Amino acid sequence: MLTITRLDQADARLLIAGAEAHAREIGVPMCIAVADESGQLLAFCRMDGGKVTSATIAIDKAFTAAAARKATHEYGAASQPGAPAWGISSAIGGRLMVVGGGLPVDHDGQTVGGIGVSSGTPAQDQAVAQAGIDHWRAHRA
Amino acid sequence: MLTITRLDQADARLLIAGAEAHAREIGVPMCIAVADESGQLLAFCRMDGGKVTSATIAIDKAFTAAAARKATHEYGAASQPGAPAWGISSAIGGRLMVVGGGLPVDHDGQTVGGIGVSSGTPAQDQAVAQAGIDHWRAHRA
Amino acid sequence: MLTITRLDQADARLLIAGAEAHAREIGVPMCIAVADESGQLLAFCRMDGGKVTSATIAIDKAFTAAAARKATHEYGAASQPGAPAWGISSAIGGRLMVVGGGLPVDHDGQTVGGIGVSSGTPAQDQAVAQAGIDHWRAHRA
Amino acid sequence: MLTITRLDQADARLLIAGAEAHAREIGVPMCIAVADESGQLLAFCRMDGGKVTSATIAIDKAFTAAAARKATHEYGAASQPGAPAWGISSAIGGRLMVVGGGLPVDHDGQTVGGIGVSSGTPAQDQAVAQAGIDHWRAHRA
Repeated sequence: MLTITRLDQADARLLIAGAEAHAREIGVPMCIAVADESGQLLAFCRMDGGKVTSATIAIDKAFTAAAARKATHEYGAASQPGAPAWGISSAIGGRLMVVGGGLPVDHDGQTVGGIGVSSGTPAQDQAVAQAGIDHWRAHRA
Repeated sequence: MLTITRLDQADARLLIAGAEAHAREIGVPMCIAVADESGQLLAFCRMDGGKVTSATIAIDKAFTAAAARKATHEYGAASQPGAPAWGISSAIGGRLMVVGGGLPVDHDGQTVGGIGVSSGTPAQDQAVAQAGIDHWRAHRA
Repeated sequence: MLTITRLDQADARLLIAGAEAHAREIGVPMCIAVADESGQLLAFCRMDGGKVTSATIAIDKAFTAAAARKATHEYGAASQPGAPAWGISSAIGGRLMVVGGGLPVDHDGQTVGGIGVSSGTPAQDQAVAQAGIDHWRAHRA
Repeated sequence: MLTITRLDQADARLLIAGAEAHAREIGVPMCIAVADESGQLLAFCRMDGGKVTSATIAIDKAFTAAAARKATHEYGAASQPGAPAWGISSAIGGRLMVVGGGLPVDHDGQTVGGIGVSSGTPAQDQAVAQAGIDHWRAHRA
């Protein structure tokens, strides 16, 4: 049998709190999702003004980053025309997200979950996701 | 044009906090979702120990209760064999939930959102959803 | 709580009437969809001769434009190979449309809905959508 | 953070081997699926002669049993007309299986995965799933 470490709800809230704080700083209301290491949804927040389309996109970015253990922007590079993973963006019914804003959450060299952010530009989304991770690292028990 | 009143993120957090408190009281970790009046997801929490299957079910209960402005257990009664809404349980790709645990959130005679709870028995789910609404009514600004 | 302004059915009819008039002028029977500000369908018309495939596409263009508050052709530019939103075209089960013909409907600086048109070239679709908006602006109460 | 115990691939093979042996005994070629504790597929086998429709059904039985920590036949009883979970059978896009043949795999009081079997009668499916678990308990390291 395998022993797995995964984010709990307290972790998820720290991740969301850190992401929200940065989203407010840059003035872009975001959808923020946290998934466990299997990609299953742990927590979600659509800030006032976050886009409706971004709810699913944030959840799917968190899913992709956690379950594939890869930042979604890395899939963006790998799935360009002519690149090896060309076409992967429509896999899993379109849930495999290749747009930046999904980051795996790692701990002791293992992926323990993922965070996905959407409503801004992909660069903003990614920065907000990273801010969530930084806040979590600084404050987790 | 129409003017619509809907839950904001602060409302969603009050609803989840009240639901969580009751879930802890009865010792059943729950998935809790809050949707706006259009059924679109506003916030979600899978308490530690909440069931993975219940994530989607809670989100779909919130969607149904908000967007149809009806408690999901009412659809349960209306969709029994021979009853008028027989078969509705598989509508919208199965998102139309007829199992108890989804309640519309009403304000001034209008539905402003919905809360959906899953992981316990339907009666427990419904009680936890109601506790969320009661907490929201008592504490909202 | 939030107060939201959204299109009503009378608005939707004006939008469709304006779009239909322009579609007849250019001789291209169209599918025309209007969504509210959450992306939910308000009205739909497949003109005699409109394409069956275009029904879903028009609905999804209206959904995207309204719920993401962005014209679909802007997503087209942003999602080209190498561009930041590369890959977004398959998000939300493929509902996130990046082909021109979906326009947000704005009022007083807020998105109150969206219109999506399909059956012609993307440029024709977009022109017909814009004609719908122009007609609505000119005639709404 | 949470520490989770889940089946590994060696466990999955023991579960399938035990199920296959019983399927051969009763002369019914089966589809057999094993999921981890999150409901994600670990291993799958369609025995020669197993039904094509049963592949998805077996996978969804394993998913349901693992992720909801409940035997699918228990959902069958609970979702009869008039029973509390009436209508749950179409939840999660129809993946929530209420037909017998899905069993959670428990260890030390925790669900560590699930096994789902399909192609025979529900009673045969359930017996074959149970045989898989019995074999796993007898032979696992």
